[in-house]
Amino acid sequence: MSTTRTINLKNRPKGIPELTDFEFTTADVPALQEGEVLLSSKYFSVDPYLRGRMSDAESYIKPFELNKPIISGTIAEVLASKNSKFSIGDYVSGMLAWKETQVVKPDELLKVDPNKAPLSAYLGVLGMTGLTAYLGLTEIGKPKKGETLLVSGAAGAVGSVVGQIGKILGLRVVGIAGTDEKLEMLKSKFGFDEAINYNTTENMNEAIANSCPEGVDIYFDNVGGEISEAVLFNINKFSRTVNCGAISVYNNTTLPKSISVQPFLIKKSSSMQGFVISNYVDKHSAGIKQLAEWLQQGKLHYIETIVDGFDELPNAFIDLFQGKNKGKMIVKV
Amino acid sequence: MSTTRTINLKNRPKGIPELTDFEFTTADVPALQEGEVLLSSKYFSVDPYLRGRMSDAESYIKPFELNKPIISGTIAEVLASKNSKFSIGDYVSGMLAWKETQVVKPDELLKVDPNKAPLSAYLGVLGMTGLTAYLGLTEIGKPKKGETLLVSGAAGAVGSVVGQIGKILGLRVVGIAGTDEKLEMLKSKFGFDEAINYNTTENMNEAIANSCPEGVDIYFDNVGGEISEAVLFNINKFSRTVNCGAISVYNNTTLPKSISVQPFLIKKSSSMQGFVISNYVDKHSAGIKQLAEWLQQGKLHYIETIVDGFDELPNAFIDLFQGKNKGKMIVKV
Repeated sequence: MSTTRTINLKNRPKGIPELTDFEFTTADVPALQEGEVLLSSKYFSVDPYLRGRMSDAESYIKPFELNKPIISGTIAEVLASKNSKFSIGDYVSGMLAWKETQVVKPDELLKVDPNKAPLSAYLGVLGMTGLTAYLGLTEIGKPKKGETLLVSGAAGAVGSVVGQIGKILGLRVVGIAGTDEKLEMLKSKFGFDEAINYNTTENMNEAIANSCPEGVDIYFDNVGGEISEAVLFNINKFSRTVNCGAISVYNNTTLPKSISVQPFLIKKSSSMQGFVISNYVDKHSAGIKQLAEWLQQGKLHYIETIVDGFDELPNAFIDLFQGKNKGKMIVKV
Repeated sequence: MSTTRTINLKNRPKGIPELTDFEFTTADVPALQEGEVLLSSKYFSVDPYLRGRMSDAESYIKPFELNKPIISGTIAEVLASKNSKFSIGDYVSGMLAWKETQVVKPDELLKVDPNKAPLSAYLGVLGMTGLTAYLGLTEIGKPKKGETLLVSGAAGAVGSVVGQIGKILGLRVVGIAGTDEKLEMLKSKFGFDEAINYNTTENMNEAIANSCPEGVDIYFDNVGGEISEAVLFNINKFSRTVNCGAISVYNNTTLPKSISVQPFLIKKSSSMQGFVISNYVDKHSAGIKQLAEWLQQGKLHYIETIVDGFDELPNAFIDLFQGKNKGKMIVKV
């Protein structure tokens, strides 16, 4: 029987996760049973939402168990198969454990084609990241040509795709990010009309007003916290906020406080709505098709921060909270 | 030329309005011109939203001008008419100045029938109050039979109607109010399933959980502030919050802070949306028709706090912020 290295959740993090919250173990790889496949992990996706699953608070997805492996989006190669639908050499995408090799029932795996796009793209622009951007913007943001779209966490994996789709759909697009290098990338690579550096801007309220002279019609919010407070002062009548993430408060150890949103929502007949990709399963395949079409037409670009080595998974995850990634953060095994 | 007493906004209130923010003056009543009517005020509506118009902050409705009359929903009798559509003795409803008598162009006045319902009802259950309850609940709350509806400010004019419509539509209805007397009224007169006294309840979060064992699907929010914070811990997946009012913070002199709503909205795929009756003008007449039908069928009850005397208008308005009214607060001239 062969063995595999595995990364377990050792402790529930307090605040920003630390390396000691993770534990590397060696586990047996069980023998392959009828219907199963043996997989070798190639690329792991590391995402801010995993932080939520590391806490034991109730949420839209159940918490990770202590001393059990972390699970995230993964691309893997089929090394052996006792399932007629999968052959050796196939590449698959799915939610898999942080293990180098593993045996699974492949019911929820999708085959991906390395000839149509780089494998890592299936974790990003052609995976949950792209779908989150596309369905969050269209289903909750309900964009109308000519409107102004403001995106926080704009240089992140989801944010950069949101902005580009905004441009494809005819919106004025403004992004918020944390370094001048990211701002430059938003404008030159992703076609954002304007970008704001929240680390060097003293008055975000004013900066947003200047960059969005006609106000904000859609706010695609990946961060929450103070940045989202400043946005409130700039929302238009009937504006929509897509609450996709709140990375600025995920590591808070007490409940974060913000300016009350209610008076702003009332004044502006404005809405906020939480977005979770799993609510739109029936729209995933059409979404992926649309994203692949834009990608092939050269209308959609993406960037990845690829970190090398299974050992680096915990570090790569922790780095998300310091904004060290540009675009999708991926660990290559 | 005759004169009329008038109540002007003297100062923009800081915090809770005071009597000194209002000024009684005597103004001339101009001669009646072609197309105009001379009106004698009978009933004035006093509403929390008027507080917003007393500030000069931008909002969904423009601020009152200093040294000009306050304007609110009014029922008046036609004393003289140079307009073929209105005759002496007609009763009308409209947004009118706090004057005992006034001359207006009646373009935006509606005739009301004192034989179909008491005149004051046209300011309440058959007026903006009833429409706010009905359209806020149906258009934003999107109720489905069997769901749980939680109403804050439940003993107020809007809240008491919201709860009753909730029962008509087959919801479990829980109300939040500030005195045991109001709680009793919610249950015995308006048919609420349960009611919570926010003044005597130590842990609102827990009290809501107990009264809403299946969680909150629709939160009709008239108050904002701490009560609405406690609700966040009890919202269901796909729940909807109707942000109709935020009376608890209208008098704040600094921007109120609350627990950040974003993480809750994301966890629960939940939405919040500001409601303003003027966005639904095309649905007003069908709404009034439905409300009148329920009223005639005895399915809808209402209560009023009627204060007697033009002089009492400022006091009656101030009393709203101490919760001294039960149901619709009206001043009878």
